[in-house]
Amino acid sequence: RYGLAEDEHQVGVVTGLAYTSVGGDLLQIEALRLPGKGRMKTTGKLGDVMKESIDAASSYVRSISPQIGVKPPKFEKWDIHVHVPEGATPKDGPSAGLAMVTSIVSVLTGIPVRKDIAMTGEVTLRGNALAIGGLKEKLLAALRGGIKTVLIPKENEKDLAELPDNVKSGLEIIPVEHVSEVLKHALIREPEAIEWDEEAEEAAAAALSKSDEKTGAIAH
Amino acid sequence: RYGLAEDEHQVGVVTGLAYTSVGGDLLQIEALRLPGKGRMKTTGKLGDVMKESIDAASSYVRSISPQIGVKPPKFEKWDIHVHVPEGATPKDGPSAGLAMVTSIVSVLTGIPVRKDIAMTGEVTLRGNALAIGGLKEKLLAALRGGIKTVLIPKENEKDLAELPDNVKSGLEIIPVEHVSEVLKHALIREPEAIEWDEEAEEAAAAALSKSDEKTGAIAH
Amino acid sequence: RYGLAEDEHQVGVVTGLAYTSVGGDLLQIEALRLPGKGRMKTTGKLGDVMKESIDAASSYVRSISPQIGVKPPKFEKWDIHVHVPEGATPKDGPSAGLAMVTSIVSVLTGIPVRKDIAMTGEVTLRGNALAIGGLKEKLLAALRGGIKTVLIPKENEKDLAELPDNVKSGLEIIPVEHVSEVLKHALIREPEAIEWDEEAEEAAAAALSKSDEKTGAIAH
Amino acid sequence: RYGLAEDEHQVGVVTGLAYTSVGGDLLQIEALRLPGKGRMKTTGKLGDVMKESIDAASSYVRSISPQIGVKPPKFEKWDIHVHVPEGATPKDGPSAGLAMVTSIVSVLTGIPVRKDIAMTGEVTLRGNALAIGGLKEKLLAALRGGIKTVLIPKENEKDLAELPDNVKSGLEIIPVEHVSEVLKHALIREPEAIEWDEEAEEAAAAALSKSDEKTGAIAH
Amino acid sequence: RYGLAEDEHQVGVVTGLAYTSVGGDLLQIEALRLPGKGRMKTTGKLGDVMKESIDAASSYVRSISPQIGVKPPKFEKWDIHVHVPEGATPKDGPSAGLAMVTSIVSVLTGIPVRKDIAMTGEVTLRGNALAIGGLKEKLLAALRGGIKTVLIPKENEKDLAELPDNVKSGLEIIPVEHVSEVLKHALIREPEAIEWDEEAEEAAAAALSKSDEKTGAIAH
Amino acid sequence: RYGLAEDEHQVGVVTGLAYTSVGGDLLQIEALRLPGKGRMKTTGKLGDVMKESIDAASSYVRSISPQIGVKPPKFEKWDIHVHVPEGATPKDGPSAGLAMVTSIVSVLTGIPVRKDIAMTGEVTLRGNALAIGGLKEKLLAALRGGIKTVLIPKENEKDLAELPDNVKSGLEIIPVEHVSEVLKHALIREPEAIEWDEEAEEAAAAALSKSDEKTGAIAH
Ligand SMILES: [Ca+2]
Ligand SMILES: [Ca+2]
Ligand SMILES: [Ca+2]
Ligand SMILES: [Ca+2]
Ligand SMILES: [Ca+2]
Ligand SMILES: [Ca+2]
Ligand SMILES: [Ca+2]
Ligand SMILES: [Ca+2]
Ligand SMILES: [Ca+2]
Ligand SMILES: [Ca+2]
Ligand SMILES: [Ca+2]
Ligand SMILES: [Ca+2]
Repeated sequence: RYGLAEDEHQVGVVTGLAYTSVGGDLLQIEALRLPGKGRMKTTGKLGDVMKESIDAASSYVRSISPQIGVKPPKFEKWDIHVHVPEGATPKDGPSAGLAMVTSIVSVLTGIPVRKDIAMTGEVTLRGNALAIGGLKEKLLAALRGGIKTVLIPKENEKDLAELPDNVKSGLEIIPVEHVSEVLKHALIREPEAIEWDEEAEEAAAAALSKSDEKTGAIAH
Repeated sequence: RYGLAEDEHQVGVVTGLAYTSVGGDLLQIEALRLPGKGRMKTTGKLGDVMKESIDAASSYVRSISPQIGVKPPKFEKWDIHVHVPEGATPKDGPSAGLAMVTSIVSVLTGIPVRKDIAMTGEVTLRGNALAIGGLKEKLLAALRGGIKTVLIPKENEKDLAELPDNVKSGLEIIPVEHVSEVLKHALIREPEAIEWDEEAEEAAAAALSKSDEKTGAIAH
Repeated sequence: RYGLAEDEHQVGVVTGLAYTSVGGDLLQIEALRLPGKGRMKTTGKLGDVMKESIDAASSYVRSISPQIGVKPPKFEKWDIHVHVPEGATPKDGPSAGLAMVTSIVSVLTGIPVRKDIAMTGEVTLRGNALAIGGLKEKLLAALRGGIKTVLIPKENEKDLAELPDNVKSGLEIIPVEHVSEVLKHALIREPEAIEWDEEAEEAAAAALSKSDEKTGAIAH
Repeated sequence: RYGLAEDEHQVGVVTGLAYTSVGGDLLQIEALRLPGKGRMKTTGKLGDVMKESIDAASSYVRSISPQIGVKPPKFEKWDIHVHVPEGATPKDGPSAGLAMVTSIVSVLTGIPVRKDIAMTGEVTLRGNALAIGGLKEKLLAALRGGIKTVLIPKENEKDLAELPDNVKSGLEIIPVEHVSEVLKHALIREPEAIEWDEEAEEAAAAALSKSDEKTGAIAH
Repeated sequence: RYGLAEDEHQVGVVTGLAYTSVGGDLLQIEALRLPGKGRMKTTGKLGDVMKESIDAASSYVRSISPQIGVKPPKFEKWDIHVHVPEGATPKDGPSAGLAMVTSIVSVLTGIPVRKDIAMTGEVTLRGNALAIGGLKEKLLAALRGGIKTVLIPKENEKDLAELPDNVKSGLEIIPVEHVSEVLKHALIREPEAIEWDEEAEEAAAAALSKSDEKTGAIAH
Repeated sequence: RYGLAEDEHQVGVVTGLAYTSVGGDLLQIEALRLPGKGRMKTTGKLGDVMKESIDAASSYVRSISPQIGVKPPKFEKWDIHVHVPEGATPKDGPSAGLAMVTSIVSVLTGIPVRKDIAMTGEVTLRGNALAIGGLKEKLLAALRGGIKTVLIPKENEKDLAELPDNVKSGLEIIPVEHVSEVLKHALIREPEAIEWDEEAEEAAAAALSKSDEKTGAIAH
């Protein structure tokens, strides 16, 4: 089963694409949300660059949390664990950034990820998609693995010219510029934004606690 | 005694299977639950990949904790120590993942592990079983060590063809796809699930504490 | 798009200039402010010297925080994440110091950075600009990338003589001695200073809390 | 005096046996209990395997603490320091495990260790004794050092055949399977068990604190 | 400007003297005091010995804090950042110890350091000045950099014989035995000592809080 | 002055003896006690073995703290900094253990150390003195440095035979078995013991706080 598209939509499970010395491969990315203290754990023999790309993905997601319906203080009550299976195989590089963002958003919102989609692309702290290497090998692996749709960075659109015809016809290849497009394609429904104004929240909380104190004093 | 099947059902003690340059071997895995603060300690000269597989096993178990009858907040009050004896022998690799999950579940629930069962298989954050290497050598070691039943990943079923007949007849070999099957076979009874709805619990706790406060105020 | 000037003014995004064995390059620096506890996170395969230059930039900004309108206690409630994209490319050296300061000030004040400006220069804990290497290559990269204005350390003014004419005519090159000049040029508007006297604040807070206590006691 | 049996029964001081390239040696192990926060400190140029064997010994002792008369919450109020003198000599390996357990139990209970006993054996998290190497050299060193009784793992009983007669007649050699036997032989008296039921304790504490609160409320 | 004497008296900025394979150099040392929790941060590609000399300097200053007018508890509310610019140049050795002490005292007291003074010398935990190497090269660098006065350890006085005449006539060279002499020469005015008796303070605080409690109880 | 006996009795300053490839040397050891949280800091380019000997010395001193007149809870309110000057010279080995104990006891009790005494010897967690190497070279250095009295481990007494006569007549050499003898010789007066019974103290504190609570309740 491993190395093939998922057989159902799942929360927190995203298919990335790896490029190794022996060709392309599917990369299953799994995130879990656990009760905790805002910590991030990563496992799966990940190199420093991939760990940093998870850090960047995580900070980006925190920065847009009201847009995906998550109140920022919730982050202090959850831990997130990101694992990339086949734990004996070293993995590295920044190109799973978009997949990491998608996985974290899915796990935070509880919205499943489409099962037959894969994606590749570095992500910046603003959610922009940056170019990656090994596009051809990655797309061949996606085709072999039963993937239907692949999201790639718009900066890599120029590399599509050199692809064999069977890849171009067998896959829907969608160039993206930003995480917002990725989430539209990859999640089975869009997260609903909430209002969040930190200063208003703080003021409200302070006022409430003040009136409580006064009431309490009078009651004595 | 070491290198042989356990002589009684024990809580937290699971027999894994190792594959080394000199053949297969039994791998006794021991977990202890101690009063603590949610920390995980691992000893036994374990390599990074094995330590990460314990991390993944632990997060998976936390993610299913209501299903095994453990309220999530309990995790903050316990430490877990996983030790793999013969402390001078280096051990590594992800293939003890299923055994780690079983050991942790046993120690958290207090349900003993069957004494004459062994298991091998990587585990994902969703509890799926992934293929491992050295199946033949591992099964030979299980046979030598007096094991009756061995759980292997379904992905390794194809490797059974090349096994000698005495192994196939001397062992009950059970391919599994998921941790849920492992626990059914390995624990002497099934854990009982509890209801757990974090938000309902939080709401109940908040309501209770609110009414307490009010009562307290009136009583002054 | 990467390697080109930004196409709009953005908060926390600053264009630095790198000097590598294959020539100069634009270096996009991104900072995010997140709810937190005063921690600094850095990613992008940064060497120790670049990380230390971010530390120095951060301490300098904290030391002038009333001048940019930020009350010092706010620092304990925010985390800052500084990321330098193209996560697979190692980056090092102190020459992005002025850009780090600008990025952090922008993200703390919410004031956007001009899109067509780039800068290079080490920064001291007092905000002074120190000389950097590779000026010629950096300015050529700025020109290629569509930058209009480049801030350089005054100590490097002497190196301008050896620049080709097209660089000098194609770029507005502004030598600076201190961060205060950098912020004037790079931010789309100047931060407004606030009054801040730690001891006065402490005294006021203490007095307030004292009178509260007394009132509370009387009310019982 | 160093390298000889102790000249009086002492709390926390246990004689282990080392096996080095130049033969066997006595290994004085010292533990101290200090007011603290549940931390373990180890010194004496100990290798990672010996440090892990101290961790395993410590967890085992915590898991049996009611049996040795120590209430588990006491562990959070003590630090334990284990030191192996001759601080310039590197020491490693798991074979001091039984001695580490004995030393920690002695220091927690305040019961002295017999002065003319030595021991060797790896310990598991369940307190089982595992085989060690260099038995002959270790026993020769014990004899030379004035030791009267040596505890060895039952798994090593088979190696006694090859011992010179003077060793067999000069030492009382006692094979053991489990820590419980070690403590019987090594401590000058047996620890007294206490009742301990964590949930009962928690319930009692909670009830008490509840009734306190109510009383307090009524008294206002 | 870098490598020259400062052009005004500044708080926390001290000129040290470095001795490298290519001769002597001025070493600008900058300290900042920030609201914090008693932490020390050091940057500027400093080697372990230089970092330890900052630790020793810092402890020495804490030990004399009443003498420089700083109440010891203040240390828990400040962080100190010591930076040595030219962040790409490695720096090491203990000879900047006296300069580190001076920089930290200046930043804690707010008293500026004279602009045309430089200093070299290891410092002990008691504030004694110990001998350094490369005196000749350091003094030549001081002369080139426009320094007027240089403080050196008395233990180095014997090395002055071999100095060229222009150095001896161009610089005022002052041998010192102890930090107290350094501060007299380097700060533009002397810090004023305060009374500080920890036990008296604790007793007073305890008495005050006791009487508060009683008053509060009576008021109910 | 460095390398000579101290010229006055000082608190926390002890003269140790080092043995290097170029002969013996005096080793000035300095300890400071600072307001803090029970932390130990060590500086002076110390190797791991010397750092561990400081750890052992520190634990030993804590274990005898009532005997030197220090209530154990005081340790949580102090930090101790141990520094060995000439910060550029690497130092290692366990032989300064007795000197470390003396330095820490002096700084905790405020009792000065005699100025013309030096000492060498490893220390165990029970305060026993263990043999050291390089005795002859160390004693020659003591003589050269103006030391009058040297404490050595009794285990090294046998090495005195091979000493030149001028060393034996020029120094008072005192073999010691235990720290208690060292402190008698090295401190200018003996510390006064206090009564300390942890459980009695806890009980008293608990009773007091109980009665306080009751009084408080009644007063409402
Ligand atoms: Ca694969
Ligand atoms: Ca399936
Ligand atoms: Ca084995
Ligand atoms: Ca048994
Ligand atoms: Ca580029
Ligand atoms: Ca755009
Ligand atoms: Ca020995
Ligand atoms: Ca004795
Ligand atoms: Ca320079
Ligand atoms: Ca200036
Ligand atoms: Ca010396
Ligand atoms: Ca003197």
